[in-house]
Amino acid sequence: MTESQTLLPPDEFIISRLGDCTHPSPMRGMAFTPDNDGVLYHTLKTEIQPYQEQGLDLPAFEMAGPRETIFFDPDILSCGIVTCGGLCPGLNDVIRAIVLSLYHHYGVRKVFGFRYGFEGLNPSYYHTPLDLTPTLVGGIHQKGGSVLGSSRGPQDPKIMVDTLVHLGIGLLFVIGGDGTLRGAEAIAREIERRDLRIGVISIPKTIDNDICNVDISFGYETAVAESRRSTSTAHVEAIGARNGIGLVKLMGRESGFIAAAATLANNEVNFCLIPEVPFSLDVFLKALEKRLRLRGHAVIVVGEGAGQSLFDDNLGADASGNRKLGDIGHLLKDRIKSYFQAQAMDISLKYIDPSYMIRSTAASASDSAFCLQLGQYAVHAGMSGRTNMLVGHWNNQFTHVPIPMAVQSRKKVDPQGKLWASVLASTGQPINML
Amino acid sequence: MTESQTLLPPDEFIISRLGDCTHPSPMRGMAFTPDNDGVLYHTLKTEIQPYQEQGLDLPAFEMAGPRETIFFDPDILSCGIVTCGGLCPGLNDVIRAIVLSLYHHYGVRKVFGFRYGFEGLNPSYYHTPLDLTPTLVGGIHQKGGSVLGSSRGPQDPKIMVDTLVHLGIGLLFVIGGDGTLRGAEAIAREIERRDLRIGVISIPKTIDNDICNVDISFGYETAVAESRRSTSTAHVEAIGARNGIGLVKLMGRESGFIAAAATLANNEVNFCLIPEVPFSLDVFLKALEKRLRLRGHAVIVVGEGAGQSLFDDNLGADASGNRKLGDIGHLLKDRIKSYFQAQAMDISLKYIDPSYMIRSTAASASDSAFCLQLGQYAVHAGMSGRTNMLVGHWNNQFTHVPIPMAVQSRKKVDPQGKLWASVLASTGQPINML
Amino acid sequence: MTESQTLLPPDEFIISRLGDCTHPSPMRGMAFTPDNDGVLYHTLKTEIQPYQEQGLDLPAFEMAGPRETIFFDPDILSCGIVTCGGLCPGLNDVIRAIVLSLYHHYGVRKVFGFRYGFEGLNPSYYHTPLDLTPTLVGGIHQKGGSVLGSSRGPQDPKIMVDTLVHLGIGLLFVIGGDGTLRGAEAIAREIERRDLRIGVISIPKTIDNDICNVDISFGYETAVAESRRSTSTAHVEAIGARNGIGLVKLMGRESGFIAAAATLANNEVNFCLIPEVPFSLDVFLKALEKRLRLRGHAVIVVGEGAGQSLFDDNLGADASGNRKLGDIGHLLKDRIKSYFQAQAMDISLKYIDPSYMIRSTAASASDSAFCLQLGQYAVHAGMSGRTNMLVGHWNNQFTHVPIPMAVQSRKKVDPQGKLWASVLASTGQPINML
Amino acid sequence: MTESQTLLPPDEFIISRLGDCTHPSPMRGMAFTPDNDGVLYHTLKTEIQPYQEQGLDLPAFEMAGPRETIFFDPDILSCGIVTCGGLCPGLNDVIRAIVLSLYHHYGVRKVFGFRYGFEGLNPSYYHTPLDLTPTLVGGIHQKGGSVLGSSRGPQDPKIMVDTLVHLGIGLLFVIGGDGTLRGAEAIAREIERRDLRIGVISIPKTIDNDICNVDISFGYETAVAESRRSTSTAHVEAIGARNGIGLVKLMGRESGFIAAAATLANNEVNFCLIPEVPFSLDVFLKALEKRLRLRGHAVIVVGEGAGQSLFDDNLGADASGNRKLGDIGHLLKDRIKSYFQAQAMDISLKYIDPSYMIRSTAASASDSAFCLQLGQYAVHAGMSGRTNMLVGHWNNQFTHVPIPMAVQSRKKVDPQGKLWASVLASTGQPINML
Repeated sequence: MTESQTLLPPDEFIISRLGDCTHPSPMRGMAFTPDNDGVLYHTLKTEIQPYQEQGLDLPAFEMAGPRETIFFDPDILSCGIVTCGGLCPGLNDVIRAIVLSLYHHYGVRKVFGFRYGFEGLNPSYYHTPLDLTPTLVGGIHQKGGSVLGSSRGPQDPKIMVDTLVHLGIGLLFVIGGDGTLRGAEAIAREIERRDLRIGVISIPKTIDNDICNVDISFGYETAVAESRRSTSTAHVEAIGARNGIGLVKLMGRESGFIAAAATLANNEVNFCLIPEVPFSLDVFLKALEKRLRLRGHAVIVVGEGAGQSLFDDNLGADASGNRKLGDIGHLLKDRIKSYFQAQAMDISLKYIDPSYMIRSTAASASDSAFCLQLGQYAVHAGMSGRTNMLVGHWNNQFTHVPIPMAVQSRKKVDPQGKLWASVLASTGQPINML
Repeated sequence: MTESQTLLPPDEFIISRLGDCTHPSPMRGMAFTPDNDGVLYHTLKTEIQPYQEQGLDLPAFEMAGPRETIFFDPDILSCGIVTCGGLCPGLNDVIRAIVLSLYHHYGVRKVFGFRYGFEGLNPSYYHTPLDLTPTLVGGIHQKGGSVLGSSRGPQDPKIMVDTLVHLGIGLLFVIGGDGTLRGAEAIAREIERRDLRIGVISIPKTIDNDICNVDISFGYETAVAESRRSTSTAHVEAIGARNGIGLVKLMGRESGFIAAAATLANNEVNFCLIPEVPFSLDVFLKALEKRLRLRGHAVIVVGEGAGQSLFDDNLGADASGNRKLGDIGHLLKDRIKSYFQAQAMDISLKYIDPSYMIRSTAASASDSAFCLQLGQYAVHAGMSGRTNMLVGHWNNQFTHVPIPMAVQSRKKVDPQGKLWASVLASTGQPINML
Repeated sequence: MTESQTLLPPDEFIISRLGDCTHPSPMRGMAFTPDNDGVLYHTLKTEIQPYQEQGLDLPAFEMAGPRETIFFDPDILSCGIVTCGGLCPGLNDVIRAIVLSLYHHYGVRKVFGFRYGFEGLNPSYYHTPLDLTPTLVGGIHQKGGSVLGSSRGPQDPKIMVDTLVHLGIGLLFVIGGDGTLRGAEAIAREIERRDLRIGVISIPKTIDNDICNVDISFGYETAVAESRRSTSTAHVEAIGARNGIGLVKLMGRESGFIAAAATLANNEVNFCLIPEVPFSLDVFLKALEKRLRLRGHAVIVVGEGAGQSLFDDNLGADASGNRKLGDIGHLLKDRIKSYFQAQAMDISLKYIDPSYMIRSTAASASDSAFCLQLGQYAVHAGMSGRTNMLVGHWNNQFTHVPIPMAVQSRKKVDPQGKLWASVLASTGQPINML
Repeated sequence: MTESQTLLPPDEFIISRLGDCTHPSPMRGMAFTPDNDGVLYHTLKTEIQPYQEQGLDLPAFEMAGPRETIFFDPDILSCGIVTCGGLCPGLNDVIRAIVLSLYHHYGVRKVFGFRYGFEGLNPSYYHTPLDLTPTLVGGIHQKGGSVLGSSRGPQDPKIMVDTLVHLGIGLLFVIGGDGTLRGAEAIAREIERRDLRIGVISIPKTIDNDICNVDISFGYETAVAESRRSTSTAHVEAIGARNGIGLVKLMGRESGFIAAAATLANNEVNFCLIPEVPFSLDVFLKALEKRLRLRGHAVIVVGEGAGQSLFDDNLGADASGNRKLGDIGHLLKDRIKSYFQAQAMDISLKYIDPSYMIRSTAASASDSAFCLQLGQYAVHAGMSGRTNMLVGHWNNQFTHVPIPMAVQSRKKVDPQGKLWASVLASTGQPINML
């Protein structure tokens, strides 16, 4: 769903490897994925034209899948898994899929589950790792959250690599967002600096669906489904009162995908505000007044990163290193109230912030199936000696993506693109509120 | 579930009537309820003993049900329905049941649906009443909220009775909470003062389940079910972080029924705080610290009216005339954070306030069936000429309750009773936190 | 909800005891329930009148609750739990509540979980009992089914008591339906014959809600909620086709409570057929035709035990000893099709049998809270030396019910009572279809 | 997710048009889609290689989207909508989206809703069309089914075109499956034969997700989500009994996508049987026995079109012209029972067929958003004068697909592809059961 492009050199897509694959895969009878196929980066005629005109190869992601020969000897391999950052539907599904695939597909017998994010790789926190067995992970996918726990913020890569060496770990699976991916890259670089044979495979976790060069991330679809519950609530409250206003703050620090998709999924949203599309408070309030005078109620969805220009410059950063955001939900709530108070117009505003209820839910069926595959493909990638990469998804295929490609920028809703056009068409809100 | 008692004179239970029933009921072939049966007020041997010793009659509610002869002539009767106060699951079910019962059981052909609470009975608001037909109400029970809309606060009974007279309404159904019931009583008294033949029948609406002399009110069961979603969220977030704390504020201004029942329904709540059981902040915080040091996470449920002694005296009243409450959720959130900050103990607190998501949900199956019957019994009561009463529920029976009996005080959780004992047993929290 | 009555002698209500209570309860600080209070059996004025006229004591159930002194020494007590018969929502909740109450309230440290029903008490099946610890049962209430497994049919009481003696069990909790309760009684009698000090406490499990002298049983409310999903399906399918008919078979071998309550919960059901109300196929088919010609679609709910007179006499018995029922769902499906075929009227019938999907679901919030209390009260009863009884519920109180009182007959929907009247009023079906 | 390929000539992708676009689109301020862009058919490096080697253009679908100039004058245009075949989640969403887009984006004021499928276009059925207004369709997306009703089977294209002419319809939207698409093509050809200016735009409806050259169809994701409820049921029942077997029949006449995806979404399925992968009953039964002896329970998912070689040759066709299928669910149930009976092994088999409950459910959030866009793109396509095409989806883009391309064959699960490999990896079932 990336909606803009630049010409990409094919070597940006190359995946690092720990060494040659010399062990035959124990996965007998399955169709193996060859190393030389790829998933085209571009899908539109107009996108590939410049490459064709310049006689360039079309860029493509390496295709994920089990390889016929593998790098690690499963009999002596120990692995580790760590989950970082905020909760996201599907974390337990991914953990479970990695463990079961390591055990059943490759015969790996030791998987450490590090507790509470990168803290768990720093011995000074005294978090004893879990021993992740098929029995322990058997039913965890039916619960939200992460059995490993999580935390925000980085740890010293040197200390973390020391821990991996100390525990004899050959393959580390890192599940987390933008900051976590940078942390995984730092670990991979430290491993390379020491010339160790330890692979680092990531699975991007972003409920906001904002990781670059990955068309959809796990948990996002569940988040949209849960968000619809909140927007429905807002609608019921709005129509239940004279000049009722339902205001819902949804997730989306940099990117408004959840707010946009929840708007399309509900169809009763009248205003959708996202970080990518700036708006003037005055213009918005006047449009809201017009709506109330015409229809008697209104539903507003706002992504948490929207309208940041309405706040003072610098609010600092949180433990994950993310820029602190102004609380747009409360700002809107206050400004809407004072606006209508100023003109003696009675309103009834209900403010809804479902964030944690969304983050902690168990994965939907399609997310659950998606996580299962992500976990399996991560294991295949790791066993084949890939490192410093993440398992992505692109045009119905699972892909290998170099971490630098994924963290170079955020994926955003294109204000000129089709998703936003559908939102505008669905809400009927003014196309320009500046 | 009232858990205390005093000796009650039988005449408190007498229901006002508009006059003699002279019309045969058009409900052919059904079993009619006689006027002379009653539902015993007391259910325990120890409760009835004092009556027996003093040779007193056992007090009993009049039993709800269709009567063989009725007061109103359905052919010329017009009715009205009004919903007041905050949203509550089941409002649309009750509206629908009243309309369908009036039409199909009695042949009434005109039902006004007043908009936005008592405002709708005051012509100066210009709210045109809806014409409630079976077609219009056919599918409304599948949606949360109220098709009539609602508002808080009283209106002048004189003006409202003028409206009833002006529209030729013989029977008014009033759905609302404590304040609304007082409003209904005021209307009934004004009608009596003018010696009019207009009945006023109420159906108590209290998501808090705190109406006196009614053992369960509609919407409460749905609210508990939805509350469990929040406490589950809190638990997932709590175990997902080191020293994770999930704090959930649930409804319950005066009575902690929802908080208590949600605690029993989840079983993963560690502290349940309700208005009826005072606590010392210090004792609570120390108990919380102990829990965290032992188990690493905690889930806290707090009813919105709990801990009000922690606030300054008088916060004023809202539009419904209810005493304004201090925001115990935010107070606890702040105090917990500062307590652990003071001792340099890292915690991760997630605060969840699901109020609107609970209020706006559609009724659960059992609430839906309950509302259907409440509506039907309200119609039977109204057609028989009863007035100034509400339809209650007591020991598996539907009852007629004089409004004064219902508004004399609030139903509360008995700190010495079995419900609270089960909560204490389930949470393991200190029995006394003073 | 019992709707008929006979004069009951008070001694029918007496609960058997193993001996005197000599140990102080370890539940400090809780309000204990005295032995001498009781829950009145009757709740209506007309019901108690004959007792008063004859100067008889009003019959009452013994009240459930923790006693101040107990029979067993928790330090040396071992307990067992067994679940029998078909699955029912809440089984795991009850198991969990018993285990946690035994551990945390009384300090019992050994609880055997017998596998696959009474088979688990017969060593010839080689089912090793589970060691039920708080950790093992911690999260089981979030899943449907029974962690112990279940089976149908009796085992020799002598062998089962041998097993209890062999394992040193002092208290056996039996969760099951009518047949299981008879089995529990047989065990209790065999224990008495041998003059052993082993208590047998039952918790009645009947998704049909048909256990006598218990006003509601666990799982029933969840079953009604799930049933509504099926009736909604039937309605959607019915209106989606010309002369669409949605036919839903619901549970209810002897009693139509689920079918009746699901009808009230959905409000779009046009015909509700239950075992207690016989009907003529011809009359029903003509009423159905009339409905189709008028409205173009129809929804029918049929309890599995309805219309048994349409089958040949004796179909034998199943493993639980229950009379085999004719398959009324398929019979109706076939007869409806041939009826309309005979008159060349095109219909589109969709047949839905959701039985297993209902039985296997996890308990709803209110059922979950109910099961928690049932389990706790069962433990309190058992620790106090009660035996050959079950934990019941009556007029908002938990009660002790002698097993013979519960199995003497089935609780049924009264065709002259209020529940059925509400169903008739809601469906508009002919009052008499004979 | 098509997993095989042949070289495709670009002209297969050309969309028929009624004439030149001469009216400016009334959609001001939106980004219009140019006519000359396209969505690449192929996404893999190995797929495009042969084209590059032969110097051929890469085939591409025309891209869906609003055009700057349109064919029809909205002021005088009347439209029609018809839904055919079995119910599918999202039908009402699509109807609603078409109506709202016609009204709000283009100003069309007359939309006929034909009742009960193609029957509604044949006057001899006397089905009066609905007048589809924004008010009427406002809330229909919250309900399952189709407000228009549906039916199976074709009608004479001549008669249907007569109806379109008679009602002055310029644009017909046809929502249905394989047979319906052929019907739409027949209508389009008849229109062309008469040289009329009537457009026919289809939206493919196939809960089985088996329409060729469309990567995902609406309702499929919801169906998988609902299917998981059934497989979870089967698992609960299976583990609840000694040698418990849960057998679930899911939809999938020709293609096993639902069965495969439900297997991945549940992760507790042990055998997945689909039409594309033949199996020997003996081999399957032996594998099942092995599983039971090792683990004591098993869950089996079978697509309805699986194992058809086990039935006699020709079972005829249904009203839609689809080949009648042997009932593989009941066959497996019977054969499993007799197999284990023959070796005196006690089993407990529960058979679950959730078909109607799945078909009648309301669309999930992501399906709802998907349907909204499908409806909008169908309107854009129709207004631009396209005809004899359907709105598809390919690699995250909405596309125009000539109907002949979509009905030339069925989309199937590739037994050598990645989806099936994931199923095999997840179930652990034998790779080959022949």
